[in-house]
Amino acid sequence: MAARKEFGPSQPFKGLNINGSLHMTIQTGVLIETLSALGAKVRWCSCNIFSTQDHAAAGIAKAGTATVFAWKGETLPEYWWCTEQMMTVPGADGCDQLVDDGGDATLLIHKGKEFEEKFAKDGSLPDPSSTTNAEFKCILQLLRDSIQVDKTKYTRMAAKCKGVSEETTTGVHRLREMAAKGELLFPAINVNDCVTKSKFDNVYGCRHSLPDSIMRATDVMIGGKRALVAGYGDVGKGCAFAMRGAGARVLITEIDPICALQACMEGFQVVTLEEVVGEVDIFTSATGNFKIITLEHMKKMKNNAIVCNIGHFDNEIAMEDLEKSPGIKVENIKPQVDRFVFPDGHGVIVLASGRLVNLGCATGHPSFVMSCSFTNQVLAQLDILENCTKAKKYKNDVYLLPKKLDEKVAALHLPALGASMTKLSKEQADYIGVPVEGPFKPDTYRY
Amino acid sequence: MAARKEFGPSQPFKGLNINGSLHMTIQTGVLIETLSALGAKVRWCSCNIFSTQDHAAAGIAKAGTATVFAWKGETLPEYWWCTEQMMTVPGADGCDQLVDDGGDATLLIHKGKEFEEKFAKDGSLPDPSSTTNAEFKCILQLLRDSIQVDKTKYTRMAAKCKGVSEETTTGVHRLREMAAKGELLFPAINVNDCVTKSKFDNVYGCRHSLPDSIMRATDVMIGGKRALVAGYGDVGKGCAFAMRGAGARVLITEIDPICALQACMEGFQVVTLEEVVGEVDIFTSATGNFKIITLEHMKKMKNNAIVCNIGHFDNEIAMEDLEKSPGIKVENIKPQVDRFVFPDGHGVIVLASGRLVNLGCATGHPSFVMSCSFTNQVLAQLDILENCTKAKKYKNDVYLLPKKLDEKVAALHLPALGASMTKLSKEQADYIGVPVEGPFKPDTYRY
Amino acid sequence: MAARKEFGPSQPFKGLNINGSLHMTIQTGVLIETLSALGAKVRWCSCNIFSTQDHAAAGIAKAGTATVFAWKGETLPEYWWCTEQMMTVPGADGCDQLVDDGGDATLLIHKGKEFEEKFAKDGSLPDPSSTTNAEFKCILQLLRDSIQVDKTKYTRMAAKCKGVSEETTTGVHRLREMAAKGELLFPAINVNDCVTKSKFDNVYGCRHSLPDSIMRATDVMIGGKRALVAGYGDVGKGCAFAMRGAGARVLITEIDPICALQACMEGFQVVTLEEVVGEVDIFTSATGNFKIITLEHMKKMKNNAIVCNIGHFDNEIAMEDLEKSPGIKVENIKPQVDRFVFPDGHGVIVLASGRLVNLGCATGHPSFVMSCSFTNQVLAQLDILENCTKAKKYKNDVYLLPKKLDEKVAALHLPALGASMTKLSKEQADYIGVPVEGPFKPDTYRY
Amino acid sequence: MAARKEFGPSQPFKGLNINGSLHMTIQTGVLIETLSALGAKVRWCSCNIFSTQDHAAAGIAKAGTATVFAWKGETLPEYWWCTEQMMTVPGADGCDQLVDDGGDATLLIHKGKEFEEKFAKDGSLPDPSSTTNAEFKCILQLLRDSIQVDKTKYTRMAAKCKGVSEETTTGVHRLREMAAKGELLFPAINVNDCVTKSKFDNVYGCRHSLPDSIMRATDVMIGGKRALVAGYGDVGKGCAFAMRGAGARVLITEIDPICALQACMEGFQVVTLEEVVGEVDIFTSATGNFKIITLEHMKKMKNNAIVCNIGHFDNEIAMEDLEKSPGIKVENIKPQVDRFVFPDGHGVIVLASGRLVNLGCATGHPSFVMSCSFTNQVLAQLDILENCTKAKKYKNDVYLLPKKLDEKVAALHLPALGASMTKLSKEQADYIGVPVEGPFKPDTYRY
Repeated sequence: MAARKEFGPSQPFKGLNINGSLHMTIQTGVLIETLSALGAKVRWCSCNIFSTQDHAAAGIAKAGTATVFAWKGETLPEYWWCTEQMMTVPGADGCDQLVDDGGDATLLIHKGKEFEEKFAKDGSLPDPSSTTNAEFKCILQLLRDSIQVDKTKYTRMAAKCKGVSEETTTGVHRLREMAAKGELLFPAINVNDCVTKSKFDNVYGCRHSLPDSIMRATDVMIGGKRALVAGYGDVGKGCAFAMRGAGARVLITEIDPICALQACMEGFQVVTLEEVVGEVDIFTSATGNFKIITLEHMKKMKNNAIVCNIGHFDNEIAMEDLEKSPGIKVENIKPQVDRFVFPDGHGVIVLASGRLVNLGCATGHPSFVMSCSFTNQVLAQLDILENCTKAKKYKNDVYLLPKKLDEKVAALHLPALGASMTKLSKEQADYIGVPVEGPFKPDTYRY
Repeated sequence: MAARKEFGPSQPFKGLNINGSLHMTIQTGVLIETLSALGAKVRWCSCNIFSTQDHAAAGIAKAGTATVFAWKGETLPEYWWCTEQMMTVPGADGCDQLVDDGGDATLLIHKGKEFEEKFAKDGSLPDPSSTTNAEFKCILQLLRDSIQVDKTKYTRMAAKCKGVSEETTTGVHRLREMAAKGELLFPAINVNDCVTKSKFDNVYGCRHSLPDSIMRATDVMIGGKRALVAGYGDVGKGCAFAMRGAGARVLITEIDPICALQACMEGFQVVTLEEVVGEVDIFTSATGNFKIITLEHMKKMKNNAIVCNIGHFDNEIAMEDLEKSPGIKVENIKPQVDRFVFPDGHGVIVLASGRLVNLGCATGHPSFVMSCSFTNQVLAQLDILENCTKAKKYKNDVYLLPKKLDEKVAALHLPALGASMTKLSKEQADYIGVPVEGPFKPDTYRY
Repeated sequence: MAARKEFGPSQPFKGLNINGSLHMTIQTGVLIETLSALGAKVRWCSCNIFSTQDHAAAGIAKAGTATVFAWKGETLPEYWWCTEQMMTVPGADGCDQLVDDGGDATLLIHKGKEFEEKFAKDGSLPDPSSTTNAEFKCILQLLRDSIQVDKTKYTRMAAKCKGVSEETTTGVHRLREMAAKGELLFPAINVNDCVTKSKFDNVYGCRHSLPDSIMRATDVMIGGKRALVAGYGDVGKGCAFAMRGAGARVLITEIDPICALQACMEGFQVVTLEEVVGEVDIFTSATGNFKIITLEHMKKMKNNAIVCNIGHFDNEIAMEDLEKSPGIKVENIKPQVDRFVFPDGHGVIVLASGRLVNLGCATGHPSFVMSCSFTNQVLAQLDILENCTKAKKYKNDVYLLPKKLDEKVAALHLPALGASMTKLSKEQADYIGVPVEGPFKPDTYRY
Repeated sequence: MAARKEFGPSQPFKGLNINGSLHMTIQTGVLIETLSALGAKVRWCSCNIFSTQDHAAAGIAKAGTATVFAWKGETLPEYWWCTEQMMTVPGADGCDQLVDDGGDATLLIHKGKEFEEKFAKDGSLPDPSSTTNAEFKCILQLLRDSIQVDKTKYTRMAAKCKGVSEETTTGVHRLREMAAKGELLFPAINVNDCVTKSKFDNVYGCRHSLPDSIMRATDVMIGGKRALVAGYGDVGKGCAFAMRGAGARVLITEIDPICALQACMEGFQVVTLEEVVGEVDIFTSATGNFKIITLEHMKKMKNNAIVCNIGHFDNEIAMEDLEKSPGIKVENIKPQVDRFVFPDGHGVIVLASGRLVNLGCATGHPSFVMSCSFTNQVLAQLDILENCTKAKKYKNDVYLLPKKLDEKVAALHLPALGASMTKLSKEQADYIGVPVEGPFKPDTYRY
């Protein structure tokens, strides 16, 4: 709201196409409205097949604020069709700036250009049968179809796009890999690592939405239960404290000794999944990696153990293996809650089909968190405008937002929480060598 | 389940009518089934106009397990009609034993007999216009109608009922008042004050269901908010720790210096509502008293303050005054969530119309808590059977269940939580002067 | 202080001898001064061989406020000599009223009378060699000597003593056993079970003084450690939350299923000592029972495991067995900190020789807790004065203080913590059926 | 220990002089021994006038492990004399490598060289009367004396020193300022910002040692008290959770909106000191800035408010102003605990004369924290050896230790806490793009 008030009158995005791939929820609607209020023409799709709130999508579409391609419960081919439609700007080669979450839209441009170049070179088309990954199959099919219609669609799109602001750890990770290999086609702003995004979105957001999801989905008492959280990064920290706050006994798995030490120092038990798999009541995967909870694990779980994922992709839990497991039966208890029953009679309760449980079983992060996160997105898009679209200051690399903007996001949200801020005197600011108005910390500071 | 296994074969309740007035939820269904499995003929109604889960009521009715009179969203006259139907056993003067929650069923018998006696003496009928209390008006009308049809219906019902097991603080309080005045018509078992009921139902149950309710109803981030809990009894304690666990700053109001001191010792701020009413984001009433959050308070709240009640009756919040406040407008946001807008433009968001928020906005206490609670109810009904129906050991007074049974309820629930119990040696038991198998504590012990 | 101001002028204890056996600390000094200020002649000893603060004892003795028999580091025979001297009032048969902690003074009177009667009957003297218990040996020797000098000393003392106020769980337990057997020689006031004593002394006091003791004694980081607390009663609850607050992972052992269930519901792991003895870093015994941490346990502990007791007697830890264990060596690290090294080379660090760690290694409970506790003692002594010494209202049984006095103790301590109390309106008080000024809760209420 | 085992045999520091200025405690002794065991000749002084543990200094000196200049309770001139002696290596121009804490040793070299150059240019000597800062006066006097004896002592010392590893935020801040101005004379390793140093030393160390200090110094019950923590950086976070863990109500002051938002999200109240100064029981300054708790604040505090500092320098509290305040009286309660009484009769209890309370009133951080911290120091000194002394890879700038070493420090400490680590599979490592053995996180990761 504050951003609209401050930047709306000057219409900085006037004449620009901004496309986005990000969970199509009520809160995202506010982000879209803000981009639109600042002058942009906006196209949008969701970055997860289950995360769309249909009323949110409908509201935005109806008001004409943006063109939206998203509904709850897309199939994978539908999902990628939506992404393609969103990226395809009628009467233009593509968008000027991109908002991405998880990097699927960015991936599509990069893969599109790659296969178009390959086709130009040797006439070969992408081959969906070359992969067993269901999702990548869809991409290959989509690009196979696209190249046959327009041989340079994604190449032109990549040229037109001046920058992307990426929302998530996973997306930033992919961007860094591309930048490291010299393959990144335009500059990227890492919104994920703003403190007011990463800590608030990951730690506080998940602290709220994990118990919310489990309670809505299962009505199970969390107090007294043994809750295992795989991963003690920011998301895992939020989950662990939420489970403890609700009275559970929390166990952590970790690969990183620093995070493991932090877990110990907070009194959590650090275990391997194998050691405790038969005793745990609630499993939550929060790693950002894959194959964390395997079929073998699920076979050994106690009856009616709850299994969910709040990391990023549904492959944190071996859903494919589970679904194909011989003799497995699925009881749908209610939408997004399935009991997979093994031949021996014991079952595990899987939430949101292994996809993000807070989007599938609750309503995602609460507005306050998203407001922090999306205020960062707006400032990032303005930063791209200044430094990529108008000027060419940024290389094809991954950049953090300036700390001053991060602090601004925080400052904008403090009054609602009743905080009284202390002001640094000039003398004190000089003593510690920072400006009176900030930024207050060195870049290495970890908060 | 354990109770059914242990007592089912001997059919102890065979031939008995057991009536109940208790939130008609899925979990209550399990209680009803257990009473039925032990041989009883069961009739049931809900003890709250909003708390019925229609599918639960339908399930029980359909299976023929009990005769049920309850639906979600009853009017007050409908509520009391349901209560009367539940109490009226076809072909009998009334039930043999009663399960009550809040004391409405017990109240109806006592008031019925009182007015029948008054009518017998002076021919006067109950006069609904003699009271301004909307609920008591319904009772008076009901009894006015009843007496004209059957002059001794409740008198006979009272004579037939051998005892009641009462679920709540409020109900026990009413029973004690009646017992103190010598007006109690049959013995009562205080289930509410069993440790496995009171601590688990009030502290742990509300710790779970308050945040569950607020999150489902509003999707508001609890972290960072200022949350006031009125009352730091067992319910208030559960609420306060839940709000802190979710990251809120918690403020407490109290009248009892001992509870206030406990709140201080846990680091909660003890305030009066008046001091902080304009700063608080979420108000939760948990007192068991009335007129706690008044119209004047709500007039002074900040815009979109959330107001809810997890005490007992809806009169903890001055709903009547609010609804009648001049110029007030009501926006229904979704079922059970209303925004009351004052003429000055600020609004307060009232959950569940001021009735119990965990029943109105969530699904009540989770099964684990209810299992503790209802296992106590079954043992209490068996105790009534032994000591009131078969023998006449109890006077018309209020009794606690023996501590041994309380410990038994706990012991039955521990294996599910993975606890390894230590056994007292004979030598140790003798040293502290208790039996090896318990009970382990004196009656004064507070847990 | 408030008690002195209120009761001092009327000198209620004028002419009375009040004797006490209670840890001779600075805070106890304030209790002694208060009794003295209200007119009593006071004699005192400590109830623990290590708990005397010599400067506190000296201060009281020097000021002439009381006659004190206590020093830090008494031997067992010295301890019982001190107790006898304290009980022996020059020029009188004994004291008029007694303050006791753990029941040693009360035990001495009862045993004294018992053996005097036995001697009168059959001329037999107590035989120290008849017991292997080191402490009971001292008592028998003391009484053997005493009877040879004065055959009815304790019989007359018992007759003169009008009542005792007992400070601890253990002491109350002993009193209840004596009352149950009809052997209690005078009425007893149970101060231990006042809420403002039991919760504040046990829960909050130990929450403060356990980490204080461990940190002072060992300088070991509690964060990250595995801390086992034996017993989850009030003392255990305080200890468990203190260890968690300091970042430890907490494990609980319990015999009582209700307390075990409470521990589970707070997210603590309930284990048997045997299961985890080799992994735990810090063992704290908080049961009030004996033989909790045995020699066999200590043999299996990891090297430099810390072992301490905050229950009541030093026999919670098998100190005698440890000291006599073949090949054991003791390294004194500093006062009250000993490392017992087993022949296999691993050692355990025992604090305060297994006696109360918060008295041996820190300075006992902080003043705020003791002020709550000792205000209760003063009110209890006044209650004995009214109902035992002046009137004979009480039988030889164990009584709780009236709840109104308990609430008064709380109310006297709230202003210091900045609490703003809410006042009950007359209408509200009537609604819940309590006086406007309290008491606010039924006797069964558990807080 | 692990470092000694790994590097001891190769004697990497053989022939090198390593000097250090760092609190001369038992734990530092272990660091000194390790440096010595790796071959270094070590000279040491304390970096705080109160922080020396005399037995630790004596132990090291006696064993001949290092030459030590330090005792508890130095005057300022003595403190700087010690620093100079430590820096003056007999038979050499100075040390080869330096360990610093707070930057005083580094400051002395830089100021020494600066004034020696000024003297060479214009013959002017440092003038102690040119400053009102008591500490800087000492430095100027010391250098005035030094230049008259040896005109290039510090210039030669600067040339000889190949690098410094700095322990604290304050010291790193000073180094960064010097580097930014191009004035830094040798490379510096920032040990402070290693995760295993900063989080463990600041967050967990202070979480342990703040309550330890307050309890030892005052025996005051922390539970129920209002505790204000100035600053919610890492130190402040540790303090805030420690105070909450002990049952206090915690209030925070902050200048940085991000940290303030974090405090809100954990349920702490963010205030200005002015708003609450009259209500708070315990004030802890944890900012790293100066003039935080002023004389005006202390005048308005309640009687017997406790005031302490766990930041860095004693000027966080306006001790000079307090001591000079007209009519002030000082009551020394015990060593390191003074009550300053204002003319109006109210007093404040200042711990450790405003210097670091955990060093003055307790025994500093516990060994586990220091082991993390000092293992980093040893690895940093080895890094200086490789990259500054042997090779010249580093410029005169401030460097972080490689993350791999940070993770190594964590991994070395996990077994003691019973953590079971999960191993990344090759496939998973590739999926997230990190080596199987780490480092696991990007440099921007905040933990």
